[in-house]
Amino acid sequence: MRVLLLLFFMFSLPGVMADEFQKVPADDLIIMELDSGRVMIQLIPAVAPNHVARFKQLVASGQYDGKSFYRVIEGFVAQGGLENDDTLNTEDATKLAPLGIESELAYQAEQFTVVQTPDLFAPETGFFSGFPAAADPETHKAWLTHCPGALAMARGNEADSATSDFYIVIGQAPRYLDRIMTVFGRVVSGFDAVQRIRRGKSSENGIISDVEQRTIIHKVSLVSMLPEAEQPLVEVLKTQGDTFSERIASRKHRSHAFFFKKPPAVLDVCQIPLPVKIDGELN
Amino acid sequence: MRVLLLLFFMFSLPGVMADEFQKVPADDLIIMELDSGRVMIQLIPAVAPNHVARFKQLVASGQYDGKSFYRVIEGFVAQGGLENDDTLNTEDATKLAPLGIESELAYQAEQFTVVQTPDLFAPETGFFSGFPAAADPETHKAWLTHCPGALAMARGNEADSATSDFYIVIGQAPRYLDRIMTVFGRVVSGFDAVQRIRRGKSSENGIISDVEQRTIIHKVSLVSMLPEAEQPLVEVLKTQGDTFSERIASRKHRSHAFFFKKPPAVLDVCQIPLPVKIDGELN
Repeated sequence: MRVLLLLFFMFSLPGVMADEFQKVPADDLIIMELDSGRVMIQLIPAVAPNHVARFKQLVASGQYDGKSFYRVIEGFVAQGGLENDDTLNTEDATKLAPLGIESELAYQAEQFTVVQTPDLFAPETGFFSGFPAAADPETHKAWLTHCPGALAMARGNEADSATSDFYIVIGQAPRYLDRIMTVFGRVVSGFDAVQRIRRGKSSENGIISDVEQRTIIHKVSLVSMLPEAEQPLVEVLKTQGDTFSERIASRKHRSHAFFFKKPPAVLDVCQIPLPVKIDGELN
Repeated sequence: MRVLLLLFFMFSLPGVMADEFQKVPADDLIIMELDSGRVMIQLIPAVAPNHVARFKQLVASGQYDGKSFYRVIEGFVAQGGLENDDTLNTEDATKLAPLGIESELAYQAEQFTVVQTPDLFAPETGFFSGFPAAADPETHKAWLTHCPGALAMARGNEADSATSDFYIVIGQAPRYLDRIMTVFGRVVSGFDAVQRIRRGKSSENGIISDVEQRTIIHKVSLVSMLPEAEQPLVEVLKTQGDTFSERIASRKHRSHAFFFKKPPAVLDVCQIPLPVKIDGELN
């Protein structure tokens, strides 16, 4: 027998129990309707309260609706929003006060599930509240990592200069942006639609000058503001507890016969797929 | 002045000189026409002569034309080809002799441009002949890394069981597959078209049972077999020499004002964009 399908070494999904999931609160869940499909994003107010509040405020007032992803670089990020830079200079944007950066939180070991010590970019990586993260226990700091699907606010050269425009990481994790940008959410569903966002040219720094060529953000909604019947139930894997730690350990020490030579027992925190359920179905 | 565009820390493209590029030989260049667009792939016979020869043989005889990407997992790989597994059991496939794995080469320091020592998965990473790679100088081994865009042959549990089906890495580098799979090419253009390949469900291990839903591989061509007027000129950055090493060093030690706090002076070999020119134009 020859099975020529490369095995997908994800967590064995049929083995994941219902009680390993937890519901994303409707008040932290965003639906973004793009040309290319529907994207769902979990916000994390525990890490970036002001960025989340600002984003929700702009969502609630429909500011992002009809806007676009105007700067998209293959292998890096898709940036969208109000385009409130100098070249475009919209009215709305200039009214928004710049936000203080929220890129770090206090490290508390009991809230942090360790994945790798050390990692290339940090003394420790792991998960914080369902989000890939890194930490420096010595200085008591933790922060969210720029893994694919991370949602962060764009800014100028000053630390405290973000206002409204955001980006989603679409390529190999640009971890050098960790701790200097405010990550405030992550894509939990529809990352394929994110990957279909039209790219700009790298020689033009990703900027898509021809508006017709851009992927449009038709509508952004906060799930808690939708009628109850239209609210999707999104559940994500809990990243605390013994069961999750065992899953991490088994992914690290690969025992399947496919590994005729064992890879190093290390894990990239950005290369750990986390199952998601939408309305009770595995995504 | 407020510039809210996140800067793209690629090599400063206008600064890249013409003589830093080298032509991809037409005999190592593949054009893959998909539903979703045109993809160009550079093969690397110096690393995997038998896999490259097999792939070229199948391309020349039109075996991949009309086939599809039948197993596509978001954040991992897009797998396509003849579907010669047991469940599908095509005639052609069973005639192909399994290939001996070609996942390592002899390490020669002068052929290897160092990027990071050590990396999470290897004692050393760097570039070999334009390809992201890793090495263990102590055991005199080097190998290509599973970065986004890597082309490799799928196989069964046995090391020497690849025949014809291939995959392209579309997500965060699954570096745990390094050294146990044969990487034999990389996408040099059209990675956005690769990212538009339709995904399967992770709960079905990425397999797209409904053939209508799959992204079709219309035509695969070896550029050297096209009429000369139809042959694109593809040039890639040279990854040997002092200029390239300086570019690596400057990317590692980020001096731009945007970095109000300096990131660690480390580089992920899979997170280094390499400019490509098509017919003289930066891509």
